[in-house]
Amino acid sequence: MRIALLGGTGDVGEGLAVRWRRDTDHEVLVGSRDPERARAAAETYADTVRADAGDETAVSPEIAGYANEMAADRADVIVLAVPPYHVADTVDAVTDRLDEENVLVTPAAGMQRGEDGFSYHPPGAGSVAALVREHTPESVPVVGAFHNLAAGRLADLDAAMGIDTLVFGDDEAAVSRIVRLAEEIDGLRALRAGGLGVAPEVESLTPLLINLAHENDDLTDLGVRFH
Amino acid sequence: MRIALLGGTGDVGEGLAVRWRRDTDHEVLVGSRDPERARAAAETYADTVRADAGDETAVSPEIAGYANEMAADRADVIVLAVPPYHVADTVDAVTDRLDEENVLVTPAAGMQRGEDGFSYHPPGAGSVAALVREHTPESVPVVGAFHNLAAGRLADLDAAMGIDTLVFGDDEAAVSRIVRLAEEIDGLRALRAGGLGVAPEVESLTPLLINLAHENDDLTDLGVRFH
Repeated sequence: MRIALLGGTGDVGEGLAVRWRRDTDHEVLVGSRDPERARAAAETYADTVRADAGDETAVSPEIAGYANEMAADRADVIVLAVPPYHVADTVDAVTDRLDEENVLVTPAAGMQRGEDGFSYHPPGAGSVAALVREHTPESVPVVGAFHNLAAGRLADLDAAMGIDTLVFGDDEAAVSRIVRLAEEIDGLRALRAGGLGVAPEVESLTPLLINLAHENDDLTDLGVRFH
Repeated sequence: MRIALLGGTGDVGEGLAVRWRRDTDHEVLVGSRDPERARAAAETYADTVRADAGDETAVSPEIAGYANEMAADRADVIVLAVPPYHVADTVDAVTDRLDEENVLVTPAAGMQRGEDGFSYHPPGAGSVAALVREHTPESVPVVGAFHNLAAGRLADLDAAMGIDTLVFGDDEAAVSRIVRLAEEIDGLRALRAGGLGVAPEVESLTPLLINLAHENDDLTDLGVRFH
């Protein structure tokens, strides 16, 4: 499978890229608005995976950098690893490359900082996932996943995960595909959270985790496990 | 310390009552609008604690039933273990019994059921905690805690907890008091989540947990652990 990480030069993109390359045979396409930055990031991620394998002379792992549009065009699964305020633009730039064979995955959450810390601040559509749905042709499945992955831990291949990601969407086959893709990452468990309508509750976890890390000295780079 | 559980005949009240009585020396006052129901529940909870101790002839553990007003009047810490739509009435009925030496604790979350499962549906005040704050004299500290405790597990003294509760509020001393009280329950960890303004993100976890249990066959009576 080919996975595009649009905005993949950020920390969530980095973490997913190196984990999927280490733990699976999927090809990873790092996307950016600037293809040069995408190629540089892909190079760095490939170095990380080679170093982890203890073989710095190995042929390049299958991580390549492209402009977002090209990455989306070539991929089966497309992850919108961009900040929430770039989600709509990024989707608009790539939708004509997508069809019903693709899955568009949204991991972003809208937040704002206030006196009491970060709070959930969704776009006018009601959630980032709803915004993605509004900007995507109806035939293309949209799935929410990979919101609360403790990005630093995800990108550190020496770190154990042992955490959950919540997967939601209205297209059952697309949700199942992303659940399998998530669970191919060692130590990550994927739980189904429901249809796209549950997006606000899932996206709300992101500011909550930031606040918990801020308020509790012994907690950093937090993930969550349901049991 | 004396702890009142208003609406303590419900499942969260039951769980907190039997855990605090087993794990601490605090006196537990079960409150209800109907003092007869409160006394019957207190009797049942006392039996549970005695059975757990393996001594069914022991003198009554310190669990007693009262009308909500009387329970609030006698207690140091008052937990509003009522459904969200009874929170305002319950607070109004007891506020003249409270002062700055008390802490009023709110564990409730507003939800509604829709096509995609349960979603967060706060009262007009913005959160249940904000509603409690609006109905409570300014001198009385309000703290949010005990929202996501897997009520069935909490009430089953044979079940291990191993989960977190999130504690928030604007009065640091009151938050610390509730953090300590929470951690006196074996296996429960209390994390600070910030000021009262973080209530929506914490309360949103409750519908999320219900949806996760519904969507994933192997998960029931879910709690959450941050790490």
